[in-house]
Amino acid sequence: MGGLSRFKAALYNRPSMTRYQELADDIEASIKAGILQPDEKLPSVRHTSARRGISASTVFQAYYLLEARGLVRARERSGYFVVRQPRSSPPQPTAASTPEDRRFAVVDVSERVFEVLESAMDRELVPLGSAFPSPQLFPLQRLGQCLAKAARHIDPRSTFDDLTPGSAALRRQIARRYLADGLALSPADLLITNGALEALNLSLAAVTRPGGAVLIESPCFYGALQALERMGLSAIEVPTHPGEGMDLAALEAAIVRHRPQALWLMTSFQNPLGSLMPVARKKALVELVTRHELPLIEDDVYGELYFGDQRPPPAKAFDTQGWVLHCSSFSKCLAPGWRIGWVAAGRFARAVARHKLTSTLATNAPVQLALADYLESGGLDKHLRRLRQALLQQRDQMLAAIARYFPAGTQATRPEGGYFAWLQLPGNCNTQHLYRQALEHRISLAPGAVFSASPGFEHCLRLNFGHPFTPALDEALARLGQLATQAAA
Amino acid sequence: MGGLSRFKAALYNRPSMTRYQELADDIEASIKAGILQPDEKLPSVRHTSARRGISASTVFQAYYLLEARGLVRARERSGYFVVRQPRSSPPQPTAASTPEDRRFAVVDVSERVFEVLESAMDRELVPLGSAFPSPQLFPLQRLGQCLAKAARHIDPRSTFDDLTPGSAALRRQIARRYLADGLALSPADLLITNGALEALNLSLAAVTRPGGAVLIESPCFYGALQALERMGLSAIEVPTHPGEGMDLAALEAAIVRHRPQALWLMTSFQNPLGSLMPVARKKALVELVTRHELPLIEDDVYGELYFGDQRPPPAKAFDTQGWVLHCSSFSKCLAPGWRIGWVAAGRFARAVARHKLTSTLATNAPVQLALADYLESGGLDKHLRRLRQALLQQRDQMLAAIARYFPAGTQATRPEGGYFAWLQLPGNCNTQHLYRQALEHRISLAPGAVFSASPGFEHCLRLNFGHPFTPALDEALARLGQLATQAAA
Repeated sequence: MGGLSRFKAALYNRPSMTRYQELADDIEASIKAGILQPDEKLPSVRHTSARRGISASTVFQAYYLLEARGLVRARERSGYFVVRQPRSSPPQPTAASTPEDRRFAVVDVSERVFEVLESAMDRELVPLGSAFPSPQLFPLQRLGQCLAKAARHIDPRSTFDDLTPGSAALRRQIARRYLADGLALSPADLLITNGALEALNLSLAAVTRPGGAVLIESPCFYGALQALERMGLSAIEVPTHPGEGMDLAALEAAIVRHRPQALWLMTSFQNPLGSLMPVARKKALVELVTRHELPLIEDDVYGELYFGDQRPPPAKAFDTQGWVLHCSSFSKCLAPGWRIGWVAAGRFARAVARHKLTSTLATNAPVQLALADYLESGGLDKHLRRLRQALLQQRDQMLAAIARYFPAGTQATRPEGGYFAWLQLPGNCNTQHLYRQALEHRISLAPGAVFSASPGFEHCLRLNFGHPFTPALDEALARLGQLATQAAA
Repeated sequence: MGGLSRFKAALYNRPSMTRYQELADDIEASIKAGILQPDEKLPSVRHTSARRGISASTVFQAYYLLEARGLVRARERSGYFVVRQPRSSPPQPTAASTPEDRRFAVVDVSERVFEVLESAMDRELVPLGSAFPSPQLFPLQRLGQCLAKAARHIDPRSTFDDLTPGSAALRRQIARRYLADGLALSPADLLITNGALEALNLSLAAVTRPGGAVLIESPCFYGALQALERMGLSAIEVPTHPGEGMDLAALEAAIVRHRPQALWLMTSFQNPLGSLMPVARKKALVELVTRHELPLIEDDVYGELYFGDQRPPPAKAFDTQGWVLHCSSFSKCLAPGWRIGWVAAGRFARAVARHKLTSTLATNAPVQLALADYLESGGLDKHLRRLRQALLQQRDQMLAAIARYFPAGTQATRPEGGYFAWLQLPGNCNTQHLYRQALEHRISLAPGAVFSASPGFEHCLRLNFGHPFTPALDEALARLGQLATQAAA
């Protein structure tokens, strides 16, 4: 703020400026500094006029000037709003990055993955390698109230009632949200799980047999690799575009060639790329798996974290024959640490329910009731609007910092949702090495090698922009950029 | 109560009785009817004297008479207490019931098991087939307060802190309880899970490979059969004595013959038999598996529900080499529906932790903190004393009812803990058939066939005495006895 004050003072001291220009410049500085954020409403003309001691027409002139500069836009009967600014950011990678010759690999996840996971949980590190957004972004106090209420009013017998499918009240609320987004699911289609990870693992167990092969993205969520390894399954990696997701031609070729038992992917804001599969491609994907009678395990945990106007539909929205096992959770968008997820498993629902019944039996009862209560009270949409806005701003701040600090030739994805950016470093940068150097500076990151069972992503890394952009974070990015620059040289 | 009133009236009308005899007879009737329960204190002499309008010395005479009849006993400076009465109960089965020739079977759990499980959860049925005790027996209100407190005070970052091992505070409390019972475990030895069922499944996954063989009890907890089936493992059933648990000679022979990858059993209050392995046998068991380097998965979920003077030690107490994977939970003794269990996996701890990390990641954070708080507040021991007393009384009431209503030749175990009795019916009674008949009368039960992968328990059933002995329960047992008598004829 000190810098901004000095900036303002300099503006005010410019003798030749009119009052409306002064006001416009001041507001422009606030926008550039991130104090006024994209889509935020400017103070009303009356308010600004009173506070500044200037006439309403002067304020109007300032706002017209800002509009002319492309910084704000009037919305009918609503006032003036800040326009989303293009920021400087590194170029985006443009091609799917898995060459043909290493698309088949038996999964053997190394010690490394676990080491990276552990470091990402360390409180003392700057959490660029974390898999979670900042807990500060969640309505934990309000959730706590709901939990307290649920705990006080729980019917003792209800602890057994919905044992395996999960709380009927919670399933009803989840189904209602899907319905509002145009996806017709009934509460009976849903099974509550211990987070999405259990939903995904139950789905995989329900549709595969040890020794079989499963199609995954390249690069993919390391949890998929670990699940495949644990269940004795082979991974077939399908090239995946940083912007538009899995390559469908390559997918069909792999289906025909490898006769897999399942396909596991993320259609929206893929981890680690951040890619968003266009709607037409999602439709084609579902038609493809339906034609080949291939179970599609869809991980949609980031689907609610979109930066656009509406929720991108999941593949499940186009699933008329029940081949899609759609998995999601509240861990990324509402209640991390509560471990509440779900699966709509289509034609495999019964098999999935049995795997649940025989592996963890049921999901915590009071926590489900608390979430049902929270959803019923209607607080979620407001929270999500705020969360999305924060994530979008943090994305732009991080990409700007990367453009500033990282070596020339660095490419980064610019995801339209979620909180991960995927970087490709130039030259012979080895991100496993970078990871170790960063740890020495108390910074975590997720090196590319943990997102694939085969080599090819050693120069890549995933960064988390789910945390408020503090000076410490900026400093950590500067340090990382420095280390990467040295490595690239 | 109507019957009791008539009984009292008859007593009062006997003209030749003295006042102290009248009082003594009245109290005796209350004891026999279960109104005054074992270990319950008789009203004070002063209180009874005032209420009855009789002298204190008359009350003393009545109490002396009851003492002479062996019905009550004086405790120094505490008053008079009801003595535990031997009740009539059916004879106990005496031999392990699995013959040699069907000890090997590939597990193929039928539709039937799931059907039985579902019916056991139906609120509308008399819950003789249930796997849980009555929720009325648990301190749900106090737990709710702890959960409300945890929800209000949770540190946002703590939701990630203990991600995979689970809350350090909770692990500390669990370790303290073990230490108090003479089992030295440190918090670092423990991993928190979604109930004991997950602990058992993680343990099994950590020590086996698909296609391998696992030794189990005969009969055994059906959850073991389901887990083996799900993981593609073979079951080798080892004869298990209704009183003293698994036959160790048969066990060693099976180890040598079948080279199993693991042994899974319950050392205390086995489900479904209720058997309690004597301490010497537990020691010998651990020596045996250590000598053969065989992982022993110990399910100890009923260990806290003992009717004797102290907690029977688990096999883990004798494990010096880390071959025992000890699993337990709060679901049977404190907080059903909360789904909090744990495992102390010895030398397999790291492998188990990784299976947890890659399958369900973590266990609900606020619920763990609430349980840690409850344990720290010291309420558990008091609750458990009450719970054990209730279960013991209910056991005796149920066994008495079985003796009264079931056909001659019925045998029933008389467990020293837990809340399951195992019955062997005479003649050609088929309990699968009985199960269907009982359902028509809105009564659930667990037929013997669900506790084994091979035939041999068709004339057996498991009954739950974890629910208060109401007239409706008595009526249900009378009905069951009638159906069994018809079947046996």
